[in-house]
Amino acid sequence: MIPVISIVGRKNSGKTRLIEGLVPELKKRGWRIGTIKHDVHSLKNEDVDRKDTDTYRHQLAGADVVVLSGPNKLMLIKNVTSPYSIDDIRRRYLGDLDLILTEGYKSDNKPKIEVFRQEIAGENGLLCTQERDNLVAVVSDCKIDIDLPYFDLTDYSKIADFLEKGFILQQEKPTINLVVDHKRIPLKKFVAEFLKKTIVGMISSLKGVPENPQEIEIIVHRDKTMPCLNKG
Amino acid sequence: MIPVISIVGRKNSGKTRLIEGLVPELKKRGWRIGTIKHDVHSLKNEDVDRKDTDTYRHQLAGADVVVLSGPNKLMLIKNVTSPYSIDDIRRRYLGDLDLILTEGYKSDNKPKIEVFRQEIAGENGLLCTQERDNLVAVVSDCKIDIDLPYFDLTDYSKIADFLEKGFILQQEKPTINLVVDHKRIPLKKFVAEFLKKTIVGMISSLKGVPENPQEIEIIVHRDKTMPCLNKG
Repeated sequence: MIPVISIVGRKNSGKTRLIEGLVPELKKRGWRIGTIKHDVHSLKNEDVDRKDTDTYRHQLAGADVVVLSGPNKLMLIKNVTSPYSIDDIRRRYLGDLDLILTEGYKSDNKPKIEVFRQEIAGENGLLCTQERDNLVAVVSDCKIDIDLPYFDLTDYSKIADFLEKGFILQQEKPTINLVVDHKRIPLKKFVAEFLKKTIVGMISSLKGVPENPQEIEIIVHRDKTMPCLNKG
Repeated sequence: MIPVISIVGRKNSGKTRLIEGLVPELKKRGWRIGTIKHDVHSLKNEDVDRKDTDTYRHQLAGADVVVLSGPNKLMLIKNVTSPYSIDDIRRRYLGDLDLILTEGYKSDNKPKIEVFRQEIAGENGLLCTQERDNLVAVVSDCKIDIDLPYFDLTDYSKIADFLEKGFILQQEKPTINLVVDHKRIPLKKFVAEFLKKTIVGMISSLKGVPENPQEIEIIVHRDKTMPCLNKG
């Protein structure tokens, strides 16, 4: 699973600025980085596309999903009925990345770096705590009395070191992932090994399957001929 | 697989206008519609996002993927090194839809409706042929001598009838879909049934699996413990 770090902090504390500093530093080191900006406000069509475009007209017409596909960029706009969690977005849309940085998502359970500036916080302390919010580091313009890694606002190189060691390089590739009706089913090690080897064995002699597949994806849809599962 | 129809035609012939007319007509009938606009030109950051936004700043910083997630809309912008085909986009990003309309993609192999306006075409005929381009209908402001369904430019209701009968209602849900290293492996009926029943049987007694799962997704990643497939 791609590791996720949420950059949180009060409004105008410098969350976007920190991401702007970290992304080029991490890219320079060869990592593939995704970002997710959390917006709690309802988004208008013109918040996600320019008014004079064909895709804007597709949106206005009521399309559920609109994609613009060019030689160098792909844009997708989807109407949703409830906000996606970070895990939803990661599972449905993000792959081939080494790290995801989110801007916002204080109430999600991902590890967090809080950006703190005295001028913005005034008399107040940190927004997050280590226990409640899974705070893992603080980036600040002043000394803060907390037992966690602490970095200056623009010390992107040291923060990138921290992200590399603590998250990017810790990433474990899942060997098998089972999702039933959009819910991940946890697998014990023995069951995971059994399922994995059975599946690899079953498909190994099929025409078109390479000798050493890197990734196997199987989707089974319910239909009339899918056997019912009668338990007990 | 979600059916795809490509709306093609000369520049300014009214492709976007047709999509604008068809989407609300199809939505009114309860169908979930996605659109894909094909752009052959290189896209600048400002072509896919507004300059004064945080996500624009994430893009400028060099993020490989940028997502904006709000309560009602999700936007995703991805840098790609080569343009995605319609099938790539459908497989990676589009689900839960009844029909995908593309604007453009004349050279892809999907069934096509050509929009033809005499004023734009001048002395020229249709861009597409039935055999070479998989042309399935023509929408035009003049009579065209071709043995295919033909509709007036704004006859959205009849065109929607045609799309419903010929494509949306013809859609067969795949019962099992096997993708190895991003390539779909075609399965004969017997093999598909065998794989499906084996998988459903194997996972049926796992904790957390519901009695009648609607969809099962399994992803296997290569790692040191995945057995090698030695053929012959």
